[in-house]
Amino acid sequence: MPEIYWEDFVEGDVKTFGSHEVTEAEIIDFATAFDPQPMHLDPAAGKASLLGGLAASGWHSCAIMMRLICDGFLLRAAGMGSPGVQETVWREPIHPGDVVTLRRKVLESRSSKSRPEIGLVTFRFELLKPKGTVAMDQTVVIMFSRRNPGARLA
Amino acid sequence: MPEIYWEDFVEGDVKTFGSHEVTEAEIIDFATAFDPQPMHLDPAAGKASLLGGLAASGWHSCAIMMRLICDGFLLRAAGMGSPGVQETVWREPIHPGDVVTLRRKVLESRSSKSRPEIGLVTFRFELLKPKGTVAMDQTVVIMFSRRNPGARLA
Repeated sequence: MPEIYWEDFVEGDVKTFGSHEVTEAEIIDFATAFDPQPMHLDPAAGKASLLGGLAASGWHSCAIMMRLICDGFLLRAAGMGSPGVQETVWREPIHPGDVVTLRRKVLESRSSKSRPEIGLVTFRFELLKPKGTVAMDQTVVIMFSRRNPGARLA
Repeated sequence: MPEIYWEDFVEGDVKTFGSHEVTEAEIIDFATAFDPQPMHLDPAAGKASLLGGLAASGWHSCAIMMRLICDGFLLRAAGMGSPGVQETVWREPIHPGDVVTLRRKVLESRSSKSRPEIGLVTFRFELLKPKGTVAMDQTVVIMFSRRNPGARLA
């Protein structure tokens, strides 16, 4: 049974979750499968690129962030999926050995008028590098079951 | 040597690229690593969810789309990476056996004022399901080298 419902996300709340050390092997494995551009596969090509060294695919960063979201709170929550991502910004490359963490800000919480059993939460998720700089941020809407469903409005 | 430079992307151009059959095994493998929510791991949980059956993680859809982008044109192009994604919308779930293709629309092309050797292209990428419906769409900016660098403007 979920522990966390829509009502538990409070606008303005900021929390930090988890950590993950990104390895050279996993950068290359992900890129080989999904994003085989040279700067994600080969240290020399990474060094010659704007990324300054072998760097994780931006989609790998998204996948790592999603795993931190799952382990941090989503797997204990009554999550119902997401309609989409409002914005993703890749600000700094992630290199082998970087230990990344997740910062979650609750930007907005609203109930669904048409489906009173559902609430929607807009999050800003930031993937933080070891020195606290932001490697990537994302604004995402996630749907959750309500602990106390609202009334269906006319 | 790249075949495709910034100048080769013409605003308004629409093309379709590649195809990939999404298997149950790869849906579960990706979800196990990065997005272990029940609807991405277990057919029964998928059926009970809003997705109507075992369905690929939205991040898996992004990764599959990136691979189609790479194989379709990006690996032959003078690509320099991307600052980010303006919007990602997950419109329909992707289920095992779905064969997906990529549709690329060139929305906007502009040169960089500060870096005359670079141009930026804004694409709308759509991941199409077998019947031509859109499972996911994305608006993404990608940087490319220019074949004919422009003048640095004051």
